[in-house]
Amino acid sequence: MDKKKQIAELIQPISDDLLSGAAEIALKAIFIYQTVMNLEPSADLAILKADIYETARALVECQPAMAPLFHLSNKVLFATQQANSPAELRKSCQSALDEFERNLCESVAKIAELVYDLIPPGEMVFAYSFSSTVVSCLLNARARGRYFRVACSESRPSWEGRKLSTRLASGGIEVIHTFDSAMGIVLPTCSVAFMGCDCVGAPGLVNKVGSLLLALSCQEMGIPLYALCGTEKFVSDERLFEFENHERPGGEVWSDPPKGVKVVNRQFELIPTKLITGLVTEAGVLKEADIAQHLSKTPVHEALRLEPAGF
Amino acid sequence: MDKKKQIAELIQPISDDLLSGAAEIALKAIFIYQTVMNLEPSADLAILKADIYETARALVECQPAMAPLFHLSNKVLFATQQANSPAELRKSCQSALDEFERNLCESVAKIAELVYDLIPPGEMVFAYSFSSTVVSCLLNARARGRYFRVACSESRPSWEGRKLSTRLASGGIEVIHTFDSAMGIVLPTCSVAFMGCDCVGAPGLVNKVGSLLLALSCQEMGIPLYALCGTEKFVSDERLFEFENHERPGGEVWSDPPKGVKVVNRQFELIPTKLITGLVTEAGVLKEADIAQHLSKTPVHEALRLEPAGF
Repeated sequence: MDKKKQIAELIQPISDDLLSGAAEIALKAIFIYQTVMNLEPSADLAILKADIYETARALVECQPAMAPLFHLSNKVLFATQQANSPAELRKSCQSALDEFERNLCESVAKIAELVYDLIPPGEMVFAYSFSSTVVSCLLNARARGRYFRVACSESRPSWEGRKLSTRLASGGIEVIHTFDSAMGIVLPTCSVAFMGCDCVGAPGLVNKVGSLLLALSCQEMGIPLYALCGTEKFVSDERLFEFENHERPGGEVWSDPPKGVKVVNRQFELIPTKLITGLVTEAGVLKEADIAQHLSKTPVHEALRLEPAGF
Repeated sequence: MDKKKQIAELIQPISDDLLSGAAEIALKAIFIYQTVMNLEPSADLAILKADIYETARALVECQPAMAPLFHLSNKVLFATQQANSPAELRKSCQSALDEFERNLCESVAKIAELVYDLIPPGEMVFAYSFSSTVVSCLLNARARGRYFRVACSESRPSWEGRKLSTRLASGGIEVIHTFDSAMGIVLPTCSVAFMGCDCVGAPGLVNKVGSLLLALSCQEMGIPLYALCGTEKFVSDERLFEFENHERPGGEVWSDPPKGVKVVNRQFELIPTKLITGLVTEAGVLKEADIAQHLSKTPVHEALRLEPAGF
């Protein structure tokens, strides 16, 4: 089979994945890089490098709002640069993958520590959409003996809220589940709200559509809203707006609309940082003013540089 | 068949109707009163009165947020009071029903005149949930030659937004349809937003859940939001909060939630009047300060008086 096609097939499940958060998707991508490196045991250095370039480009393009996919791919690309043999390349890529995975896990553990202190005992907590970081932090707090309930909404059109409810309930957390536009009914019973985040830049956060309504409601009702995200979600402003290229098929919202009805299915939106009480990162709880100094200054590998906008 | 059961069966479709707005439901109730009056041609005066009492109570109870059902039933009950024979009763009830229907239609026609002037030519208009008044006004404006597009959302869990899209598209209006939490994505493209309304009192308006998120978004984005409603929607504050008794089955939101997940399905919520730019009524576009003088001062028939809250 043509190699490009083979790589595209490996990546397809990530492209189709509407239920996983950004950190979870990065973990799946680590497995894909390992598979690609070993697709052809006898491949020479040039072929291996070309396969990794192809994988990196395709991964970043298929989920443009997911910052960890970009940083992971960028690190892997730089790891290929100094290798002088297939064995060296495999070794340096594997060590980049291992380091990324270790940092991701350590980062979630630190965030969970901070979140524990943000959950008032015995209260109701709101959680939006599906973020593996949010789930880990809530389950960790429950396992450490903090009692609280979680309210959440279904997250149309892909129902990530059902996945969230199921995971939390299986971890012994009592869940109140409703539809998305009923946020205004359940939020007044909540003391704090948490959401994940796919991408952070100076103008704001990118997260699942609906996060903006949540943020506006929290602001109006005086409920603190925290976005849980390691600094692997921080990107340059230029890359931040890549999420706007992510339009999903209208049929996922309404499979048979009548003539004259255009169905719009966007997956991500921008939430201005001023609407967020704090970003809980492995480097502490950051406020709007702290974000600039954490923005990504990592050099970007040429394979991932964005084309300048033109005519 | 037992009469009470027979009336309950007639009313069941109104109880189950999650797709129609308050004015549309009042028109269906007029037909039910006509049917009940003629169920038993040989019924004596006492039986006829009892049947109408039963119908009125059951109708108001089955959709407690719908003010026109209350006013219609209240008028019919007063119409029965002076009748001295079955024929007189049928005649005075029929004339109360006719008058109510006529007023409702005249009221919608006047509201449509006012709405025409609120639609900026060539712009996008947002419409939420399903209101026969909103649909009539938009179709009327289109028929009078005003060109505009409508954006709307699906209105989970009962999909009234699909009914709205279908009706508007069949009347030649181009519709942009999305899911509810994507309001934040489409609203910035809209110049004005319209919603129906089931009930108005001094503290605010009662309408389909999701209206509060719409109102908060419109406030933040500087988009004028009008509620279209005849003064037949105005009630006493005491009756306004009856909507809180209207909990729907959780299975309509999620049919098979896992153990530990409680599904909440509320249908209506209160929107503070300060979030609404204006109430478009047959008496003009009312602002917050104007509402008090229009609040319902009609005497309430004893059959419909609310029990005082107790322990």
